[in-house]
Amino acid sequence: MEVQINSWERVDDLQRKGRLLIQNPAMFCFGIDAVFLSWFAKTKKGDRCLDLCTGNGIVPILMEARNETATFTGVEVQKESADLARRSVLLNGKQDRIRILEMDIKEKSEELKNGSFHVVTCNPPYLKSEGGLESPNRAKAIARAEVLCTLDDVIYAASRYLMPGGRFYMVYRAFRLFEAMETMKKYGIEPKRLQQVQAYEDRVPAIILLEGLKGGKSGMQVDPALIIYDENGEYRKAVREIYSDAE
Amino acid sequence: MEVQINSWERVDDLQRKGRLLIQNPAMFCFGIDAVFLSWFAKTKKGDRCLDLCTGNGIVPILMEARNETATFTGVEVQKESADLARRSVLLNGKQDRIRILEMDIKEKSEELKNGSFHVVTCNPPYLKSEGGLESPNRAKAIARAEVLCTLDDVIYAASRYLMPGGRFYMVYRAFRLFEAMETMKKYGIEPKRLQQVQAYEDRVPAIILLEGLKGGKSGMQVDPALIIYDENGEYRKAVREIYSDAE
Repeated sequence: MEVQINSWERVDDLQRKGRLLIQNPAMFCFGIDAVFLSWFAKTKKGDRCLDLCTGNGIVPILMEARNETATFTGVEVQKESADLARRSVLLNGKQDRIRILEMDIKEKSEELKNGSFHVVTCNPPYLKSEGGLESPNRAKAIARAEVLCTLDDVIYAASRYLMPGGRFYMVYRAFRLFEAMETMKKYGIEPKRLQQVQAYEDRVPAIILLEGLKGGKSGMQVDPALIIYDENGEYRKAVREIYSDAE
Repeated sequence: MEVQINSWERVDDLQRKGRLLIQNPAMFCFGIDAVFLSWFAKTKKGDRCLDLCTGNGIVPILMEARNETATFTGVEVQKESADLARRSVLLNGKQDRIRILEMDIKEKSEELKNGSFHVVTCNPPYLKSEGGLESPNRAKAIARAEVLCTLDDVIYAASRYLMPGGRFYMVYRAFRLFEAMETMKKYGIEPKRLQQVQAYEDRVPAIILLEGLKGGKSGMQVDPALIIYDENGEYRKAVREIYSDAE
């Protein structure tokens, strides 16, 4: 099968079982957030997994490489991103394991049944939308700020699609940690695990990883901080393992 | 002034400006939690500070040594602990700066005005009371489990005694992090800062430190993890500084 790659696009080797990703550098490209989220989210044999705000499909593509028995659905509202994601899935020959839906998570879909997923993941837009003037690059603005969907929209959708006992995994800004946990609780997802990600040992974490359990009981685990760089600016061992094929 | 020290008690040098503490080894003795809380809680010039569940008075005694312009009130429900705390205050000659009240935080007091404190600190009992059989040592059980006061009682009292814009500082079990934040929110104290304390770099934190702001807006800071020991089991630099007189 031939997959179209446009001249303005690039193809990255994800260093994980040969998986590839098509990106358009003019749009939002994946970062460490997506890599950490795909590592933090634990999947079991045969799990049905849903990735909200999937963008170019980085999260389901990385997760599929770690669990070849699970199936993945990525949902993306932006036509261009959904198209990139679909072509990357084809390029990896994984169209039987990963499907990409172009839709707004605020709308109902015939193709997504409520309560039907074991796992929902999301790397949502982090910033509050300022209304009015948006970034001149609308695609980037949509990926970064709450232009088309808010934290509340994302978590409400996650809760709707999760089965009882299903797991929700999110990467988010540390600044909005409590707001994220509160919103999870509001929609019946109990916060169960938290991990903060710091660039260096003495730096405040910019991002946090959260796990929630649909219908779970109170009580949570806080993980050791994940520290990215050593004092020489090199990836620390735990991070090299996350990035490597080794798993 | 002569201060009575009983034969079953010991006097510890707190290594901070010569401050001393009388402890009864048969009762609850202070641990790192109290030391970290007294360091995490920031006070300003002339602040009125209230410590709930003050036990033997370790928190106000340590905090007073760091801020000699603030005044402190420690509240303790157990007669024996309140007596220890009062004698330690006298032993340090700080009776004009620290007062100890023997009272139940669930009751009203003529001596404590609502909305009158800049800072409230608390190292509350961590464990849910199991009802029925308590530890054979009732004093220790009261200090450790929610026999006489629950998380809800503590945070309700903190909120009542704080002025608008006043700061609340708590040390608590990581397992109950979200429950603590939720309860703060319930009583109008917005979670503003979180720091996890790990024994080693790769260990899950047993305790967390929380700061809240009475009437504060949403949005918080997560601090770098505080890691106690290096790979040789020695205190790390940050912890040596917390324990030292240097500040």
